[in-house]
Amino acid sequence: MELNEALAKLAELQKKLYAYAAADSALYLDGTTVAPKDTAEGRGVALGVLAGERHKLFSTPKTGELLDYLWARRNELDQLHRRQTEELRRSYAQLTRIPAEEYMEYAMLTNEASDVWHRAKENSDFELFRPVLEKLVAFNIKFAGYYDSAKAPYDALLNEYERGMTMEYLDGFFSTLRERIVPLLHAIGKKEQPDDSFLRRHYPVEAQRKFSDYLMEVLGLDRAHCTIGETEHPYTLNFNNKDVRITTRYDEDNMNFSMYSVIHEGGHAKYELGIRDDVQYTCLAGGVSMGVHESQSRFYENLIGRSKPFIEAIFPKTREFFPEQLSDVTAEQFYRAVNKVQPSLIRTEADELTYCLHVMVRYEIEKQLIGGALAVKDVPETWNRLYKEYLGVDVPNDKQGCLQDSHWSGGSFGYFPSYALGSAYGAQMLKNMERDIDVWGPVARGDLSPVSAWLKEKVHQYGGLLEPADVVKNACGQFDPAVFADYLEQKYAKLYNL
Amino acid sequence: MELNEALAKLAELQKKLYAYAAADSALYLDGTTVAPKDTAEGRGVALGVLAGERHKLFSTPKTGELLDYLWARRNELDQLHRRQTEELRRSYAQLTRIPAEEYMEYAMLTNEASDVWHRAKENSDFELFRPVLEKLVAFNIKFAGYYDSAKAPYDALLNEYERGMTMEYLDGFFSTLRERIVPLLHAIGKKEQPDDSFLRRHYPVEAQRKFSDYLMEVLGLDRAHCTIGETEHPYTLNFNNKDVRITTRYDEDNMNFSMYSVIHEGGHAKYELGIRDDVQYTCLAGGVSMGVHESQSRFYENLIGRSKPFIEAIFPKTREFFPEQLSDVTAEQFYRAVNKVQPSLIRTEADELTYCLHVMVRYEIEKQLIGGALAVKDVPETWNRLYKEYLGVDVPNDKQGCLQDSHWSGGSFGYFPSYALGSAYGAQMLKNMERDIDVWGPVARGDLSPVSAWLKEKVHQYGGLLEPADVVKNACGQFDPAVFADYLEQKYAKLYNL
Repeated sequence: MELNEALAKLAELQKKLYAYAAADSALYLDGTTVAPKDTAEGRGVALGVLAGERHKLFSTPKTGELLDYLWARRNELDQLHRRQTEELRRSYAQLTRIPAEEYMEYAMLTNEASDVWHRAKENSDFELFRPVLEKLVAFNIKFAGYYDSAKAPYDALLNEYERGMTMEYLDGFFSTLRERIVPLLHAIGKKEQPDDSFLRRHYPVEAQRKFSDYLMEVLGLDRAHCTIGETEHPYTLNFNNKDVRITTRYDEDNMNFSMYSVIHEGGHAKYELGIRDDVQYTCLAGGVSMGVHESQSRFYENLIGRSKPFIEAIFPKTREFFPEQLSDVTAEQFYRAVNKVQPSLIRTEADELTYCLHVMVRYEIEKQLIGGALAVKDVPETWNRLYKEYLGVDVPNDKQGCLQDSHWSGGSFGYFPSYALGSAYGAQMLKNMERDIDVWGPVARGDLSPVSAWLKEKVHQYGGLLEPADVVKNACGQFDPAVFADYLEQKYAKLYNL
Repeated sequence: MELNEALAKLAELQKKLYAYAAADSALYLDGTTVAPKDTAEGRGVALGVLAGERHKLFSTPKTGELLDYLWARRNELDQLHRRQTEELRRSYAQLTRIPAEEYMEYAMLTNEASDVWHRAKENSDFELFRPVLEKLVAFNIKFAGYYDSAKAPYDALLNEYERGMTMEYLDGFFSTLRERIVPLLHAIGKKEQPDDSFLRRHYPVEAQRKFSDYLMEVLGLDRAHCTIGETEHPYTLNFNNKDVRITTRYDEDNMNFSMYSVIHEGGHAKYELGIRDDVQYTCLAGGVSMGVHESQSRFYENLIGRSKPFIEAIFPKTREFFPEQLSDVTAEQFYRAVNKVQPSLIRTEADELTYCLHVMVRYEIEKQLIGGALAVKDVPETWNRLYKEYLGVDVPNDKQGCLQDSHWSGGSFGYFPSYALGSAYGAQMLKNMERDIDVWGPVARGDLSPVSAWLKEKVHQYGGLLEPADVVKNACGQFDPAVFADYLEQKYAKLYNL
């Protein structure tokens, strides 16, 4: 085999993998947005077959030979091809350990599970979801062994979302955060709370849709390359760096939910749209890890979106979309309301401070589920106990409890810690950004372009070209969760006069 | 190979073909509805690769061997498997004549063409579309040779949409219709025209959307298995008999357009939803031919949807959706308005009588384009000349002329005659239906279920289990276009006092 021939085959392989991913994405997007209700079965058949075909394509020994050949000649490859080969070898090694049949079965299961979870959540019926969740957990334990049998199963899964992440590190990380967040929370508990009742006035969906359009404009999202849809659980889906979709959900009695979900998903979209052209249709397209992805979404959502300069910049326009609802509200009141700290039930509606506690509950449960220390049937009870312990709230039902998130139904175990890691990465990125450029002057004028340009340069552009840890280092320097804790303390000291 | 093993492989092959078709459909649906504007490139890459993979899967010699093996043992097969084998052998023979590269190139071309056509139509710029159309025509001429080199190229393409159809037959068919329609048209031209100006009052999109929901209810379309979307050009897309989508377009100055496009596409959807379960995920799923498909859509649209009993049944409710716009209108006036005969520019807005003349223009042009007697650059001129000759109208621009339809941009040459054939099949089905059951009593009460049950029994249920000609025979008896001409004469004699 000539090197050029091998490189052509490498490109062809990756284009095929892109095509299968695009097919999956289109079916998923359809299934979660416009598809008629009783149509999961047919989509499941298609997704199962496509997963099997992709599996066959990627796991054939010929692929292994091609990758070995290229790896042996890696010194002759440019950075792009070397990195592609390295990443594909890693995926190949992992995938070839999963039997094709199990892989297909799992693809069909997650499709079914999504449907069942929706119905279970709607009816707050954990028993409906339980058998499916049991299968999902069993699959993930088995897959963890395939991924890396030398690791504890949950460590092997964590590694999927943030390479190198371990329970040992996260136990330390979360206990640092908990030690600093819990006292803050107690101090705030003694202070007077701002009034945020105006956020829960009646906000018609149509006006909220227009407000979302405005927010996307402020974020600098080009609508010719990024649309917004509506789903039960908001998400970002990327076909390529010219085609990204975000979704949100409109709650007429809570304008805050869609507002911050749009900014959050918009942050994910900014990342995907900012990735360089020359990695498209390769395994290096797309964000590098879940932790880094969440650092971007939560950067826009919290560090910018819940900052005072940002609120002051957008509030006059916000009031134009909701003149009746916000006529008696000032920017200062709005700022305080969107930063009100209040232990609550729903992660996606949590304030910036208690958010990490929501993540810790999930981390704790996943660790035990995958470690075999907790049975699926006991999830609701454990969930409710931990919410009481960490957040001091009573969970009234599973809809507002352990059925609230879609992640498990999609087969994601080990994803949740990325949210907390991302928050912490982001705080450190902000600190460095403030050193490099004038962040708050432009933001106060509603201009996010310097912020976006900095993030594009330090994070977005690379896609998967660098290792996740190197991207973090590039933007954060030596990662230190204390920077995030410092940020929280300073922010809430001012807000609550601590 | 054991027979059982071969049958299992046959099922697996068809499930894979279903999965690729579902992936295509999901990407197409997305591309025509919610996808951001500048995203055709990435979708084209995916569609091209998937087309290549499907091609490879289906055209491998192993597939040929499997089909030959089963065909040799066809006497041992039940009807379903025998028919599947027969159909797949036909497709295999045809497909293996198209080189894989050309097949992939063509898939990417049609994706690009759809995008270019949209822009060309928007700007009424035929020159923009011309180079793409030239490529499409060249491909189709080449493909026609692959399909059946013994046939004239256009005959080979016609055969794709309605098996056995030829220019010779269609020349006769269309001249029969023309001989009966043109005198009718002249007679009507001397009569007073009904007032239909109220159809072009201002009809807000939101109210039209609700009206569409109502129409789907009247048609008996179960929304858990059939949704409605919005696209430039309305279409029906079927994943399987439990998952069908229709689309429409809302024109605020013309309530008739979406009304009859919904009923038309609804007719296609009824067909797909009525197909038996045991042919799903096989090559026999889906309507049997374009002509039979159009017979169903145009049955609901015209024979039922533009009938007096139907209008009388739905008019009171229609007025509730549009109280201001229709307050001074009676059911009789509405009936006359939706049946007003007036030679016009746009096929999809044409009345039932002149519709076939629109089809004839396209038939004539396709015949010459594929036959090599007409250059693509001369299409606009020829189009305009034929519209003047057949319909007596002057075409002011290409947007309202040869750029109006999406078919050619999707690579469909030879489809248009199906519309006229379908209309003629439908008229004969109605005649037989009236013999079998009470059609108009229930329709006058807004109850379409007996009509739908008859069509389901005679047409829908079979899917591809019978040959198209046998489905036509089953529902029509010996096909005779004169029945359609009789129907038109009787209908318009009453409407216009001829």
